[in-house]
This record gives sequence, structure tokens and C-alpha cells, in this order.
Amino acid sequence: MKWLRYTVQGKTFTGYLNGEVLNAIEGVPWGEWYPLKVEHALDQVKIEVPVIPATFYAAGLNYVKHIMEVAQARGEKPVVPGAADIGYRAVNALIAHGEDVIIPADAGEKIHYEAEVVVVIGRKVKNISEKDALSCVFGYTIGNDISERDWQKEDRTFFRSKNSDTFKPMGPWIETDFKIQDAKTRVTVNGIQTIEFDTQAMLFDISTFISRTSRYATLYPGDVMWMGTDGTSPNIKHADLVEIEITGLGKLSNRFIKAK
Amino acid sequence: MKWLRYTVQGKTFTGYLNGEVLNAIEGVPWGEWYPLKVEHALDQVKIEVPVIPATFYAAGLNYVKHIMEVAQARGEKPVVPGAADIGYRAVNALIAHGEDVIIPADAGEKIHYEAEVVVVIGRKVKNISEKDALSCVFGYTIGNDISERDWQKEDRTFFRSKNSDTFKPMGPWIETDFKIQDAKTRVTVNGIQTIEFDTQAMLFDISTFISRTSRYATLYPGDVMWMGTDGTSPNIKHADLVEIEITGLGKLSNRFIKAK
Repeated sequence: MKWLRYTVQGKTFTGYLNGEVLNAIEGVPWGEWYPLKVEHALDQVKIEVPVIPATFYAAGLNYVKHIMEVAQARGEKPVVPGAADIGYRAVNALIAHGEDVIIPADAGEKIHYEAEVVVVIGRKVKNISEKDALSCVFGYTIGNDISERDWQKEDRTFFRSKNSDTFKPMGPWIETDFKIQDAKTRVTVNGIQTIEFDTQAMLFDISTFISRTSRYATLYPGDVMWMGTDGTSPNIKHADLVEIEITGLGKLSNRFIKAK
Repeated sequence: MKWLRYTVQGKTFTGYLNGEVLNAIEGVPWGEWYPLKVEHALDQVKIEVPVIPATFYAAGLNYVKHIMEVAQARGEKPVVPGAADIGYRAVNALIAHGEDVIIPADAGEKIHYEAEVVVVIGRKVKNISEKDALSCVFGYTIGNDISERDWQKEDRTFFRSKNSDTFKPMGPWIETDFKIQDAKTRVTVNGIQTIEFDTQAMLFDISTFISRTSRYATLYPGDVMWMGTDGTSPNIKHADLVEIEITGLGKLSNRFIKAK
């Protein structure tokens, strides 16, 4: 089942996709809801960010090739994390499928995508075991953890390297029936494929991150956990179109625009 | 004016304090609201976290004595930040004035308070100048940025050192008429004062943090910015009561309980 948030004539709805038709609901997909009996054609709506999380979790270094290539690019020794320590991103930076990424005027040239599978939590949990961890997952979507590498290296925090407005495209929808086992993550820039990797080839898998995080932090419905990326990115420039496709989750497309 | 969130018989209200009486409103303090014409006695309600931020900002090292003493405790050279780079904390960790801090069973002994003045944003702004920065502030409250120092040193992120459930007491209310110029921040543990410092003696002041952050990130009403702390803390133990008072902002009190 595919769940979207979308706007029609200034009003924002939550709904599920049936073929090419959106069925609007009242309520939340992971809780109580009832059908509004209002339908919209998917190609007639503006797609919004599928969920605004209360806490926006993100795994940092979670694919081996990414860790190696990032270290090489920085001239440093690769450090493989020893535990599934989750990080954070900021809600201000979220944008939807189809919206433009605005590269700040003072940003450097090393603007990189990071293609990530995103877990959407559906149930309040604390201290959940690895074995049971996936039972609190509502569904999955796609995230692009856009990064300005000079700021990431120089600044004390990720406040502008990763959390500048528009730096966190997420969507287009939440898929409840995702099978990660055979999924591939593919990125194209202006239609040319730049990378493909096994979505599940993580250093620490989703169950490990959920279980370890929940030992200390209660997870709430609507929280999201971005699972990290593999490989590296070319420098993305003004007018480039970056599209991330994950098998079964659709495609997240965003054009990059350099601010003047 | 003092604004609170509070619960009476299972229902949560927003209201302002008039003497010892709370006047409930419908709406948000920084936006449109109207009086509900419902009154409650302050001492008859359960005080809640005064605001749940969409983005939870926190300045890290922002008072010189804290920077020096932290470096000394770690056996490292002090590094004074060169710019006002804001960090983040997580909403799951927030608790209200009067609620218990639960120290996780596997935490070490170095459980420390950090007494902080908290800025509450009242207006959506982007790219605001330092000169105008305070015009987007709705009011101020108190935060305790509780930290487990072993985890802070060992882990890749602050996910459990600073963002374990209950590690972010905030309140008791939002004061709109705060004058930081003469304010002192005082902490007591079980009634004995452990530290006092000038609240405004920051490395980078509030205007600087707001202006620099807003160059990259839109600030939204209800976002909070915790401004950092001075000095260091003794190890807080099971059953200790930590109270933070800032002149004009009241007192934030929380007892610490060690989980079994």
C-alpha cells in the first residue's frame, strides 16, 4: 500500500494510492483513520513530504564502500563504526518529491547526493529486541541526504552541510509492502546512472539500529530513520536533476538550483 | 507574560499565568488565539513541556569556563569554537518541570547537568540580520542538557549521551518579558548551590546564533534554541534533586532516578 500526503487547491490530504487514483482519509495511516470518500488523480496533485517526523533519525556511515571512498576523498584513514549509533537531521530541511533543492549562494562545489532507504515508525516502542524490531515499522520511503562536503569537514556540526533548507528530499510516498532483500538503490543524474548498490548491504541493519536506539529513546509513530548510503557522488551542479530509485519504493526526483 | 502547557483531568491546555491563576486559550501564544474563559489554579495542574519544537536546536560549547573545564576533565586541549555552529537535540528526550529524570541502568557515574537559557522562536524567519535577530524571539525558558560523559566521549553521536528519554527537562514556562542583561543562572543539588554564572556571558550571543543559523535554515514558530552552559557539574546520583533558576525565568526542578 502506498501512502501519500498531497495538496489540491490549497488543501493538504493524506491518502492511499489505488492505481492512479488517490483515496483521501481522515486520521493517520499508522493509527485510526476512515475514508473521506474523496478521490484525486495522482497526476493532478502536488505531492508533499509523506510524513513530518517528531524525531528525524539518520544513520551516518552504514555502507562499507561509502566509508572507504569518503575517507579516501578526505585523505584520511577509514574508520568503520563499531556500533549502530544513530544521528539526527532537521525538519526544516525536508522537501517533497519534485521540489527544487536550493544550493546556497556561498556553498562550495562539493554538493553531493546520498541515496538512502528510509524507515517510517508506526508504533510507539521502547526497548524492542532485534528479533521484534521490524514489527514497529509502518513502511518505507526514499531520502536524499544532500551534503556540502566543505562545510561538513569545517563546521563543528552538520547545521548547514546537511540541514540547510531543501537539503533533505523525502518521498514520494510510504510503501508498506517493501521487500528489502532484493532491492537495489539506483541514482541517475540527468538520466545517466551514477551508482547502483544493494539496498540491504548495510554495516548495521535496520533491526539493529531500531533495537539499539530504542534501548535509550522511545520511538514514536511518524519518526523516520534514514539508513545511510553507499559509494560517493559526483559534484552536483545548477540545473542537474537527481533521481533516486529503490526497487519497490518508486523514484524520488529533485532538480538542483544554485541560489544567486 | 508567562505561558504554560498543563494538564487537568487528562486534558492538556495552553494558558497564561495571572498571579497564581492560569487562563486557558485556544490557539498558539505566538499566533492567533482567543481566551477560553476557563481558569485553573497553578498549584492544581500538572505542568507540561511548554512547547514541542519542530526543530530542537542547541549550541554546544558557548561559555568559556565550560570549554576550559570540559577539556581539562577529558585531558584534552581546549578548543574554542570559531563560529556559531548550532547543533541539535531530540524531542523524545523532553520532560517537564517536576518530572523525573531516569538514568539508564547501564549508564556510568558521570551524569551531569547543563543549565541553559532557552530561546523560543515566535516568527518564521530566514536570513535575519544580527541587528534584527531578537525580533523573531517569542520568549525564553530554562533547559537542562543532561549528559552522560562516558557515552558522549565514546559514541559517534549524542544519541544516548544527551538524547536518552528524560534527558532534556525544559520549563517551567515561557517568559516573554525576560531581560538577559542582569540575569544569573544558578544550580542547586539537593538545595546546595553548585554553580552560578552570568546568563549572558556567552561566547556567541543569541543574536549571532539566530542570524547565522537563519542564513541556511528557516526558523519556525515554536522552534527552540538552547544556548549552552558554563562551568561543570558534579556527578548526579540516584534521588538527587537538581534545580536550575534563571533570574526572571523561574526554576526548573527535576529529581534523578536510577533505573534498575
